[in-house]
Amino acid sequence: MIFSSKLIEDAVQEFSKLPGIGKKTALRMVLQLLKMQREEVEIFTGALARMRQEIRFCNTCHNVSDGETCAICANPGRDHSQVCVVENIRDVIAIESTRQYSGLYHVLGGILSPIDGIGPDQLYIETLHNRVKENGVEELIMALSPTIEGDTTVYYIARQLKDLPVRITTIARGIAFGGELEYADEMTLARSIAKRLPIENYVTVHNKV
Amino acid sequence: MIFSSKLIEDAVQEFSKLPGIGKKTALRMVLQLLKMQREEVEIFTGALARMRQEIRFCNTCHNVSDGETCAICANPGRDHSQVCVVENIRDVIAIESTRQYSGLYHVLGGILSPIDGIGPDQLYIETLHNRVKENGVEELIMALSPTIEGDTTVYYIARQLKDLPVRITTIARGIAFGGELEYADEMTLARSIAKRLPIENYVTVHNKV
Repeated sequence: MIFSSKLIEDAVQEFSKLPGIGKKTALRMVLQLLKMQREEVEIFTGALARMRQEIRFCNTCHNVSDGETCAICANPGRDHSQVCVVENIRDVIAIESTRQYSGLYHVLGGILSPIDGIGPDQLYIETLHNRVKENGVEELIMALSPTIEGDTTVYYIARQLKDLPVRITTIARGIAFGGELEYADEMTLARSIAKRLPIENYVTVHNKV
Repeated sequence: MIFSSKLIEDAVQEFSKLPGIGKKTALRMVLQLLKMQREEVEIFTGALARMRQEIRFCNTCHNVSDGETCAICANPGRDHSQVCVVENIRDVIAIESTRQYSGLYHVLGGILSPIDGIGPDQLYIETLHNRVKENGVEELIMALSPTIEGDTTVYYIARQLKDLPVRITTIARGIAFGGELEYADEMTLARSIAKRLPIENYVTVHNKV
């Protein structure tokens, strides 16, 4: 694409650095900014710049935070004896958005993946160990991807913590609500039969959701 | 979606004001900004803020411009006797990107559309009239949408300028390169047969593109 304005060209160039944004989409966004009032665009760019400048990571759980401790860890109304272990902050947002979980989190920053060069030292496993040891955590809920890497990470962490008095659970795997049995993969289907629940539990869970 | 950080929430909120960007895509972009270096994000937001603050519109052709006169109008190497009339700056970018046109432009700012309340006074038709009258423009190439509104606008402008010594042409309509005859609409197909070209012209155009 050829632009007669350097200002437009630079803005399009910058937008197309974002994931999944090609030149055409970038141009559409730039033209949208052009249509907006100057003050609105200042608010837009200000919010992005401030986010990147001021964002911090929680000292305790490594979630993104506006201060030293994130809003979740700082909330006395939450259950501090439960910690949900996740891969990244996107997972925290996903679980928070269900409004069904009231414990804390621990963001590992990834999962073990020898092929990508990610070993235990690249993840926040040591701080998890310290938290469990010092903060009276009673249950760790492992909410990692159901992949070989995810399972390996769960197994590794469980071994690291085996001498501590903490209960380790994993989130349930099974057929999704609204999912069709015939399209489920064999592994999921087999596991969901093996881990079947008494009907009373089903009704409770169903009504709660 | 529930965010534990106000900084993140604001940034996602701002991104989702852009066209075609939902909350999930906005979050993906915000997380991408988080992964980038602070300096890179400053360059990103700086380019967008500067674009909106400093962009101007060319006094002559109403294209976006970095100064009083746009780079195209200010270029003595271009053919100042030819002016291509387009609806908006997106069309200028599209035609410039073909690298085949070396004349100037005139951005109308829209097309006549009574249903949307857009009459001649909302468009830059008077400045076009003045340009033709005073700047020795020899040819106006009408490159507007092939719709009823576009055709009405062409017709209206042609009537306004009928006493001035300027040749008015429109861009060719026809079957697109790579287009399948059977999928072309009847109007386009009928017109492309009526406006058929001698084979020599075809070969020239084809080789040039």
